[in-house]
Parts: sequence; structure tokens; C-alpha cells
Amino acid sequence: MSLYRVEVQGFIERCMMAVGTKPHHARSLAEVLVAADSRGHYSHGLNRMDMYVKDIKSGVCAVDGEPLAEKQSAATALVDGKNLLGPVVGNFCMNLAIRKAKEVGIGWVVAHGSNHFGIAGFYAMQALKDNMIGMSFTNTSPLVVPTRGKERTLGTNPLSVAAPAKDGDSFVLDTATSAVALGKVELSERHGDSIPDGWGCDPQGKITADPKRVLTGGGLVPIGGSEATGQRVSLEHLVRWVSLGGALARPWGHGEGMIRTPWVVVGCLSGAGGVLLGKCFSNVVVLPQADPDAPVLTPGDPERASLKKCEEMGGILYHINVVKYMNDYAKKIGVSELLPCDETVTT
Amino acid sequence: MSLYRVEVQGFIERCMMAVGTKPHHARSLAEVLVAADSRGHYSHGLNRMDMYVKDIKSGVCAVDGEPLAEKQSAATALVDGKNLLGPVVGNFCMNLAIRKAKEVGIGWVVAHGSNHFGIAGFYAMQALKDNMIGMSFTNTSPLVVPTRGKERTLGTNPLSVAAPAKDGDSFVLDTATSAVALGKVELSERHGDSIPDGWGCDPQGKITADPKRVLTGGGLVPIGGSEATGQRVSLEHLVRWVSLGGALARPWGHGEGMIRTPWVVVGCLSGAGGVLLGKCFSNVVVLPQADPDAPVLTPGDPERASLKKCEEMGGILYHINVVKYMNDYAKKIGVSELLPCDETVTT
Repeated sequence: MSLYRVEVQGFIERCMMAVGTKPHHARSLAEVLVAADSRGHYSHGLNRMDMYVKDIKSGVCAVDGEPLAEKQSAATALVDGKNLLGPVVGNFCMNLAIRKAKEVGIGWVVAHGSNHFGIAGFYAMQALKDNMIGMSFTNTSPLVVPTRGKERTLGTNPLSVAAPAKDGDSFVLDTATSAVALGKVELSERHGDSIPDGWGCDPQGKITADPKRVLTGGGLVPIGGSEATGQRVSLEHLVRWVSLGGALARPWGHGEGMIRTPWVVVGCLSGAGGVLLGKCFSNVVVLPQADPDAPVLTPGDPERASLKKCEEMGGILYHINVVKYMNDYAKKIGVSELLPCDETVTT
Repeated sequence: MSLYRVEVQGFIERCMMAVGTKPHHARSLAEVLVAADSRGHYSHGLNRMDMYVKDIKSGVCAVDGEPLAEKQSAATALVDGKNLLGPVVGNFCMNLAIRKAKEVGIGWVVAHGSNHFGIAGFYAMQALKDNMIGMSFTNTSPLVVPTRGKERTLGTNPLSVAAPAKDGDSFVLDTATSAVALGKVELSERHGDSIPDGWGCDPQGKITADPKRVLTGGGLVPIGGSEATGQRVSLEHLVRWVSLGGALARPWGHGEGMIRTPWVVVGCLSGAGGVLLGKCFSNVVVLPQADPDAPVLTPGDPERASLKKCEEMGGILYHINVVKYMNDYAKKIGVSELLPCDETVTT
């Protein structure tokens, strides 16, 4: 079924506030989740709201205070996220980076004491409003087994770059440094399918086609990083090492003894080039296609298609089960005004 | 056979000066090539000297003038490389980035009018001397076929990040955004081997195991980018779009009608963290190994092993044929003082 953005936004805000989140922090979170859904990244949208609610309820995320810039130079800053919701910290950092970029050409802001911040692209894209290039990186909990290793040590470490293009268009890369998302492996397992070589490894660190082995003691492999196929040394460490500090190697997550403080890094570059960027864009788009029915892909194309679909429908398409689950969940935490649940329009 | 670094360095300088390169420009080039060889990247070392000589002789690279910062802010600069040798432009930019980083926390410098600059890691590593994190990116001539495409449109677009670590150690990532280096495909073809899935495609854009088809009309595929294996949207565009300008999409190379002006982007971040970085390092290195004889790999490990070998031998190991070829080549361009060629010590 299709729901208005504003309905989903308001619902998430109500749920977050029901467990003690400040209204403007709840709004920040809701905006990221709705943006993810509109862009077709359902794994990072409404579907994940209960995770953030639980984080607040359990005290994993703080509700009081605001992020603070601990150290600053003209172009850089180190921010203490005060263990607040990730989007609160992400927005604070990106706004600071944009201000710095306006003044000195680039802003590079690193935060500790943050939490899960949703899709990385959301922050990078904020630079587009000012006709700047935006970048956003974070580490994640360990899901990835390093080359020749057999233990999950590395995060999927997303990275995003957004650049303005011609006529209001933009280039948005929003990806991670693991070969695939864990969700893809989970889906294959649920469907009883095997997985292609180079997605994940078993508990002995060997590449496996069995999704169950990846999920029980194995892990994802780094992007392009399987030594068995002779691919390049992976980019697995890139985000960790660009992030100014070493604490990134610390595992974080919900488990016992885990420290749940991902680092956030955002950057922003001012400078002209919008029109030229637009030209590059078309340069790629008009390329000869291997398959006449499959246009050459540029990062951001699938998201563009999803946004168009939302616009045509006047809302975001959700599976009825997701809406029902979220409504049940809301009742549990004492939210009475639920999402409209009209079964006459289902996906 | 093994040659002293200083012998190779001097030889390259003599050859470059024989065709009109200014002494300090020749020195810059020689330093990058020798560094590549010491780090085991023979594809980017002495072996490539004749390419640079030809570029000077044919006028593809200029010999007069010095790079110029056209536009500057406190933290950024746009440099005109004046079509000089790539290492001359790369060094100029990195020095400028380091100066800016010392002043305002980060320096981000973009150059046009450059040429092939050797290994990207050389520039990123210059930041290590000042205990800073260095980054270096460039586009290259088109060798890579974009997802769903069938024409070589994208470069291999190398990227490098260097970060100081504990006790003088460092982390150096020096990679590219294609699945493999073209040289690996060439080597497989020479050996009569097939190539693994996901290295390259044929002229119709289909993934192929036949290296010949990749080399004749096909191309490399982006890192992690084969849609057939369901991997992530690739990082193929990352460098192009972070590079402030759109002209990056312009093909360059030695062919007719090609514009040979790669862009260079370098960045430099000041900040503490060396000791902590060192800790992360060990964190990875002591991980349980999938194979007891194969330690867990961190980017930079193969280079570290090569440097150690050079140190033990007191020189760089070269295949005798490379030395002979280079001596013959030097004679052709009028260089009389050749590389020592002692066949009693061969590899």
C-alpha cells in the first residue's frame, strides 16, 4: 500500500517521542528514514524504526543534550555526538562542514559518540542545496571478514558522495565496502537459494555458496576483496583510516561487551562545475548498451527510479505487513494515532 | 639482478634529461618510479620509463614552466599543471595540500593539465612525514566498461590513502577502482590461462573468462561491479565526481583525438592519532587466520614485504631483460652511462 510521506514522518516522530526522544531529534530521525524509503532503500527506512525505539528505551542512545564541537580548525572539526541518535549527530556535522566549506573551500568533520545514522547518502546530499559536493562515511558493527581472516572484524563501512549536476539533477553514490549487503544473503537464505561466489565466507574463512554458513559464524567479504578470485586488495579499511582516529577498529553493536559508538565523517567541497557535471552524466547515460532493455547504470539511477515512482503514486509504497507490524509495535509503546492501513491498495 | 636505488634513480634522470627534461623535473619522475619498484609495483617503475621519454619527445608532455595555483581558498586550490610530467604536478599539489593542512586542518588540491603520475601512493605517503593522513586520486585513460555498458568509458581511477601508525609504521592503501589491473589480464593471456569471472568483459559487455576478448574490444569491469554476480553498484565514478570538475569524463590517452590530461586530486588531513592507528593495525594483524601459512592481509602488507626484501639485498631486484631493454633504449636516445648489467646475479 502507498502512504503519504507526511503520514510516515509524523508516525515515526510520535513513536520516538513516546519513548522520550526530544521532538527535533525525532524529526531528524524520521526524515532520514522517510528519505531512505522514498529512494527504495527499505532496509534503512520505516522498517528499522523499532531498532531506534529500542535503542532509546534501553539507554543505548541518549536523549539529553546536543552534539558539541570539541576541537576545531578553520576547515575541520572533531565532534562529540554525546551518544545521541545518529541522524542528530550526522546533521550537526554536515551543517558544520557546509558552513566551513563556504568559508574556506572545504569542511571535514569527524564525530565520535554517535549511533546508527541511516543511509549515508542523506548527509552527502545536504551539500547539494548549496551547490557543493558532499561526502559521508561511517564505520559499522563488524560483519565483514578481512582477506585471509575468519572472524568478522570489519564493518560494511558505507560511503556516499553527492555532486550537483545539470538542471537540478545530481549524482549520488551511496554504497558500502562489503561485497553485498547482509540483507541480500538473508534473503537468499529465506528463499532457499545459493549465493554467488564472492559474497561471503564460512566460519573457516572460505568463500561459500551457502548463505546459512555466512549467517552462522561466517561473514561478508570485502568489496572486490576475495583473494580466491584474485581481485584487488580491498577498500575495506578506507573509511577507518580516513577517519582521523584509531578508535574505529573497536567493535560496536548490541552484544555484550560491545561499544556502540560508530564514527561519522562528513566532508563538503564548494566550487563550480554543476553544468559540467551534468555533461559527464549524459556522457555515461548515452553509452551503447550491452542489452537493449537495460540502460547503462550510473550510481543513483535505481534511487531516481524509486523517487519517480513515489511521485507518480503520491506516496511511498509499503508492504502491508510492514505497516501492520509497525502499528502493532506503536500500540505496544503507547502510540494511539497509527498509520492508515487501507488494505484495498496493496503492493 | 639487484641494482642500487641510486643507480636506477640517476639512470632515469639522465635519460629524461637527454630528451630535454629539466633536471629537477627528471628527479621528480625518477623518485616515483624507483619508489614503485621498491614497493614491488614493477608495472609502474623503471619498466615504464620509455613511456615518459616518448611523451617528452613527442611533445605530449611539456618541459617548460612550472605548475601554477590558479584559484585558492584557505583549504583548497585549483592547479594548472601546465601539461608537465605528472610527478611534477603531483608533488606541487601535495606540497600545497600539506601547507594548507598545517594551517587550517585540511588541504584539498585539484589539478588539470597533468599527465601520468605513477603510483598514487607516492603522493599520499608524503603526508606521513608530517604525521598527517594523505590521500591521492586520479582518473586514467578509459579501460573500464561501466555496468551494463559495452564500451570502455571509465578509467581505472586509482585511489590511495596513507596514514601514520605506531613506531614509524604506516597504513598505505594504493588501489584502483577496476576489478583488476589490465596487466593481470595481459599476463593470463600470455600464459594461456583463462581469467576468473568478474575481471573483464567481451566487446558485447558480457563477462568473459577469455583474456583475449577482454584485450581485443572488451574491457575491465569496475571493482565489485559485475551486475551478473549481484554485487554492489560500483565505486567507478567516485574519483571523477569528487574531483570538483566535470572534465574528468573526457577520454585521454595516446590515440588520435584523445586529450591526455588526467586530473589529479590530493588531500591532506592533520590531526593526532598515530599511536591509536598503530593499535588498530595490530588489531587486524593478530586475527585468526583462515590458512595458518597465510597471515591476514592489510593493504600495504605486500609493499612492506617488498621493501624489506630490497633492504636485505641492498638494492632493487630487476629481471635482467628489463635492464638490458632499458640500456638499449638509453643508447638510442644518446645516453652513454648505462645501468650496470652484471649477469652473474640474476633473478
